[in-house]
Amino acid sequence: MALSNIRIVLVRPTHPGNVGATARAMKNMSLRRLYLVAPEKFPSSMATDRAAAATDVLESAVLCASLDEAIKDCHLVIGTTTRSRRIEWPTLDPPTGARRLVEGAGKGPVALLFGQERTGLLNEELDRCHAMVTIPADKEYSSLNIASAVQILAYELYRARLVEAVTPRVMEGHEGRPVSQEDMHRFYEHLEKVLHQVGFLDPENPRLLMRRLMRLFNRAELDDNELNILRGILTAIQKYHDKS
Amino acid sequence: MALSNIRIVLVRPTHPGNVGATARAMKNMSLRRLYLVAPEKFPSSMATDRAAAATDVLESAVLCASLDEAIKDCHLVIGTTTRSRRIEWPTLDPPTGARRLVEGAGKGPVALLFGQERTGLLNEELDRCHAMVTIPADKEYSSLNIASAVQILAYELYRARLVEAVTPRVMEGHEGRPVSQEDMHRFYEHLEKVLHQVGFLDPENPRLLMRRLMRLFNRAELDDNELNILRGILTAIQKYHDKS
Repeated sequence: MALSNIRIVLVRPTHPGNVGATARAMKNMSLRRLYLVAPEKFPSSMATDRAAAATDVLESAVLCASLDEAIKDCHLVIGTTTRSRRIEWPTLDPPTGARRLVEGAGKGPVALLFGQERTGLLNEELDRCHAMVTIPADKEYSSLNIASAVQILAYELYRARLVEAVTPRVMEGHEGRPVSQEDMHRFYEHLEKVLHQVGFLDPENPRLLMRRLMRLFNRAELDDNELNILRGILTAIQKYHDKS
Repeated sequence: MALSNIRIVLVRPTHPGNVGATARAMKNMSLRRLYLVAPEKFPSSMATDRAAAATDVLESAVLCASLDEAIKDCHLVIGTTTRSRRIEWPTLDPPTGARRLVEGAGKGPVALLFGQERTGLLNEELDRCHAMVTIPADKEYSSLNIASAVQILAYELYRARLVEAVTPRVMEGHEGRPVSQEDMHRFYEHLEKVLHQVGFLDPENPRLLMRRLMRLFNRAELDDNELNILRGILTAIQKYHDKS
């Protein structure tokens, strides 16, 4: 299993100590690929202190200006939360989420996202996710330290790999190759354009409908053949319009 | 299950930040009973900072001069380690250790021990344990931060309690009601009609494409809201055609 295909993405982390502690938590569980989206302060001596013997993970961290940049080549993106959300995403418990990621890493890059300390993942960040992992926690005090959340998921990823090593992989029933987030993003843009064209999007609130459609198609985890079919349908609708 | 019967014991912790982070990790997982054996510095502002909203757990921590004092009324004592030991104790994985502790807590006080940051539990401390829990970790860098180790075990204790209460259900992430096969059949007929209209179906082999699309949408397991959105899009495409 290609461990280098699993990346941990911290989105807008504010506290350097947490970034360092995340690097350590990762290395303890054999994970090395840390992506930092617009960190408030990096590098930082506090991050280095808390990283202990995992400064190599910190030093090789990939700095990104946006979340899209961090996940553009990923075919599976899973977000983390301890709270339930208004619009529900498919929600997995940590062992199930870890299993999905380990299976996905066999095919190409996958990402596990952690939101900013105070806010968690924002809605537009959640829109990038195929599924959410919820860490079960105390009803009245569910806000885990972010490096602690990374530690729990990194531990579950380590355990999932141990299981994977001795268990045959479950076939997903896809013929084609997995699809990158970048390709999905282009598909969603195309879809939105066509929906505008045929007058289906509510001009008052176009995002809500798009969010629901993105959730639906993310859940289906399209392969490249299927994406080509859907793109072809959208193009046919546009051509049909141009002719008439 | 008497949660107050589960105590977390830190043996000679040297870093106040770790004590505070331990308190937070515990409270996040509904644990409140922290015992500190000869801490190097306590109380401390750094412990309070890292405890975040778990200062109540810190304030009610029980200070002990010796390990024996901390566990004297316990009928089950489990130690933690990430390394294998020369003299072998019965060694449990974290879920099994957590289950033992949760079961034991039904009968009276039980303790989970964490050794000093640098040394771990010493042999004379291990002698007090009925069993050891080993956290699986990277072979070359197995030394977890102590509060991270507490977080993983506290999480497993929380999960063990959930299993004890009811078997946890995996949320599927749907708001709406499930869709009948009959409704899906009508949707596919509608889809096929529109695809004919926009000239997308291959007249030589229309079934192959439809079969692929059916597989895709079946896999997504639509709810009734989502089906209504998709039917609405198809109708909008048809209306758009009638207008033009």
